[in-house]
Amino acid sequence: MFNYSLTYTDLYQLSMAQVYFLKGKADEKAVFDYYFRKIPYQGGYAIFAGLQDFLKQLEQLSFSDEDLDYLKTQDFEDSFLEYLRDFQFKGNIRACREGEVVFSTAPILQVEASLIEAQLIETILLNLLNFQTLVATKASRIRLIAKDKTLLDFGLRRAQGPGGYYASKAAVIGGFNGTSNVVVGRDFKIPISGTMAHSFIQSYDSELEAFRDFALKRPKNCVLLVDTYDTLNSGVPNAIKVAKEMEERGNKLLAIRLDSGDLAYFAKESRKQLDAAGLSYVKIAASNQLDEYVIKSLQEQNASIDIYGVGTNLVIGKPDGALDGVYKLAYAAGKPRIKLSESLAKTTIPHVKQVFRTYDTNGQFNGADAIALKNEDQPKQIHHPSEPFKKMNVENFEQEPLLHLVMENGQNLTTNSSLEEIANFSKSRLALLPLEYKRFDNPHIYKVGISDALKQERDRLINAHKS
Amino acid sequence: MFNYSLTYTDLYQLSMAQVYFLKGKADEKAVFDYYFRKIPYQGGYAIFAGLQDFLKQLEQLSFSDEDLDYLKTQDFEDSFLEYLRDFQFKGNIRACREGEVVFSTAPILQVEASLIEAQLIETILLNLLNFQTLVATKASRIRLIAKDKTLLDFGLRRAQGPGGYYASKAAVIGGFNGTSNVVVGRDFKIPISGTMAHSFIQSYDSELEAFRDFALKRPKNCVLLVDTYDTLNSGVPNAIKVAKEMEERGNKLLAIRLDSGDLAYFAKESRKQLDAAGLSYVKIAASNQLDEYVIKSLQEQNASIDIYGVGTNLVIGKPDGALDGVYKLAYAAGKPRIKLSESLAKTTIPHVKQVFRTYDTNGQFNGADAIALKNEDQPKQIHHPSEPFKKMNVENFEQEPLLHLVMENGQNLTTNSSLEEIANFSKSRLALLPLEYKRFDNPHIYKVGISDALKQERDRLINAHKS
Repeated sequence: MFNYSLTYTDLYQLSMAQVYFLKGKADEKAVFDYYFRKIPYQGGYAIFAGLQDFLKQLEQLSFSDEDLDYLKTQDFEDSFLEYLRDFQFKGNIRACREGEVVFSTAPILQVEASLIEAQLIETILLNLLNFQTLVATKASRIRLIAKDKTLLDFGLRRAQGPGGYYASKAAVIGGFNGTSNVVVGRDFKIPISGTMAHSFIQSYDSELEAFRDFALKRPKNCVLLVDTYDTLNSGVPNAIKVAKEMEERGNKLLAIRLDSGDLAYFAKESRKQLDAAGLSYVKIAASNQLDEYVIKSLQEQNASIDIYGVGTNLVIGKPDGALDGVYKLAYAAGKPRIKLSESLAKTTIPHVKQVFRTYDTNGQFNGADAIALKNEDQPKQIHHPSEPFKKMNVENFEQEPLLHLVMENGQNLTTNSSLEEIANFSKSRLALLPLEYKRFDNPHIYKVGISDALKQERDRLINAHKS
Repeated sequence: MFNYSLTYTDLYQLSMAQVYFLKGKADEKAVFDYYFRKIPYQGGYAIFAGLQDFLKQLEQLSFSDEDLDYLKTQDFEDSFLEYLRDFQFKGNIRACREGEVVFSTAPILQVEASLIEAQLIETILLNLLNFQTLVATKASRIRLIAKDKTLLDFGLRRAQGPGGYYASKAAVIGGFNGTSNVVVGRDFKIPISGTMAHSFIQSYDSELEAFRDFALKRPKNCVLLVDTYDTLNSGVPNAIKVAKEMEERGNKLLAIRLDSGDLAYFAKESRKQLDAAGLSYVKIAASNQLDEYVIKSLQEQNASIDIYGVGTNLVIGKPDGALDGVYKLAYAAGKPRIKLSESLAKTTIPHVKQVFRTYDTNGQFNGADAIALKNEDQPKQIHHPSEPFKKMNVENFEQEPLLHLVMENGQNLTTNSSLEEIANFSKSRLALLPLEYKRFDNPHIYKVGISDALKQERDRLINAHKS
């Protein structure tokens, strides 16, 4: 739906690019890492999402005449603008598979391209991957708690403008079953759902008449909203009447929906009324400010809810609202590069790299990822990147490289996976992560360390800059 | 940049529309209110933004063949899909002016259209207005604290996907001076700014060489980023050398930028070094996790910062992330409509309405907005909408109606105001709001009440539904 333009970027990318161009550095090769520093929601893991959209956008990114005319008004040189006219990304990208379980510090994706190319795609890369990873991670937390209940995204109205498009999509990667968002259903083949608002019932003089018309004219997957006036004395009894009438026509009411009040209480009482009327097949859907904590509480109360509709908290990734993903130069002009900081934790990790995941003897994730030089063998021990005396032996664990070539010379190498395939992959990976990393309160910290060789190189660069 | 499709909506809008259509209610008139319940950021006011974009989208909204083909797979009836093929919004809209200072409960906008039209535009309306109002309000809080300092939006990389487009724009309505977001600069004629990232400096063997090349090839509005290796011992001294070289070429360094560490301390020390070198004209820009509270603290410390670059916290409207704006049916089929709730505060206010703002004798906002029936004269007293015994006399205050006709039969009546005009209007309105409503901690609560006539009507409907 949305085609990004190359002007969907920060001005400084273009300013830097002009300097590189005019100084003859246009073709100088560089390597950038994409990673994040802090796992969102004080959680123990994140779900990497957005890769396929990013690669798709990369293949079509260019500057339009309108863009170039505009840039001419912003003090760019003609020769540079002519260069931009033919600009296309022709670099290489290595990345984790979309849906992978990822942790802070280790590169999730590496871009290897000319300095200009790598710089011009930075903002779009961060914009797309940060947000989708944030939402997929939120969705995955909700899925963990909701077990096999149906999870639907209802968030579009409170989403951050057109950001809602990717939110509904990323939610499915994290384990949601469907969305109310029609265009996303169309574009990504996601099941869509939703039936009526309170306004529908209000527009009739009688709630019963409103239910009747709806069941008659939209009988498939019919869900009746029962809390417009009085849930237990009006909404549910009227829904039961209409469900019985539907039975006579050979239809079945799918569910009633609760959207206010104490959901645990109203669900329990509604369930009783439905069961007493012989409508045990009619499901109960609930919505209203849900998130993983409210759903956890409802589940703990055995709240008779079969379908959760989650809105705002999901699509804006509340409370974080943003993943702090960054894009840092690791290699340029034939040399590894570093950025220092007052704290070692914010000092970057230089060089072209590979990330290894370690496995225990049961084939579960072993609680440690190893960042190594790209051409290194599997690392034997890893060092904590900011606490110099913390080490861990990883020699005897099975290891798997996580970064795979996904784009070569600007060509997308990934097969166009369906969203369902990505979601299934994510689910299978999350199944390998032990429970202690998944709990909401103070999850166990997954270790991410650097190899001997990488540590040596990093220490060397730190010392060189300090002297 | 983004053209919304009418499928950028919740499925239930289409489900309800089909029932209205098949039951012959397609042309039944309805009135919906747009308002919010909770002022964001625990603040005392909000800035209404997004109206112009919304009206522009409304004029072009339709269903494409692709949309209709997709809907056919979702159990919609052919006759209804044929109706949608020619669908265009032809209703009327009354709204506050964009940039207006607004409060909870009172309608900011009213849609008067057929039930189907009003329903089909709901999701896009909420999606656009909620988000822009959220960000404009955030920007306005930052502007209040930053006084006449320059405020720049740097948030695109952490924005919620394409939501970043409207975020950068709404920030200007709230008082920001510019953005790093190039496409928004192009589309809305906003000043754009930004110079270099750490990667630019890292890509050179020497920080000084990097600064030199940049100053030479991008001399206008040149800002040097001084914290890549060591701010006070390397970054600032190198910037001073390059500033002097620029002077020899007749150029002037605009600013240095700090992006880490204790900004108050580094700004003060940098200022000393710059002044000692005779570079008192060189400004200091600061960025890194800023929001209104951090800037308040920096201002209180006289931190020598001239330019604030605000990113994530602005563009995602942190910590709220969403405005809880709703769209409620107030009138349909010739009758006022109400939705009850367990609490009076969530019970809707029925009828076609007007909102009056009251003024004190100095021409300042008087701390009370009055919601009245549309055709009523100026109300004499107002009642708290959820605390029955609270009343206020407003008879002797000058009053101004806030809802103006902005769209008639689908035609946009607003002149296409520039963003600057909207921002200026907003500034002039905010100047009329007394300080006690603007403070961050426990701001005074602006009263919003309903007129005698409206209260009578509402009570009548509540009682009718209860019996």
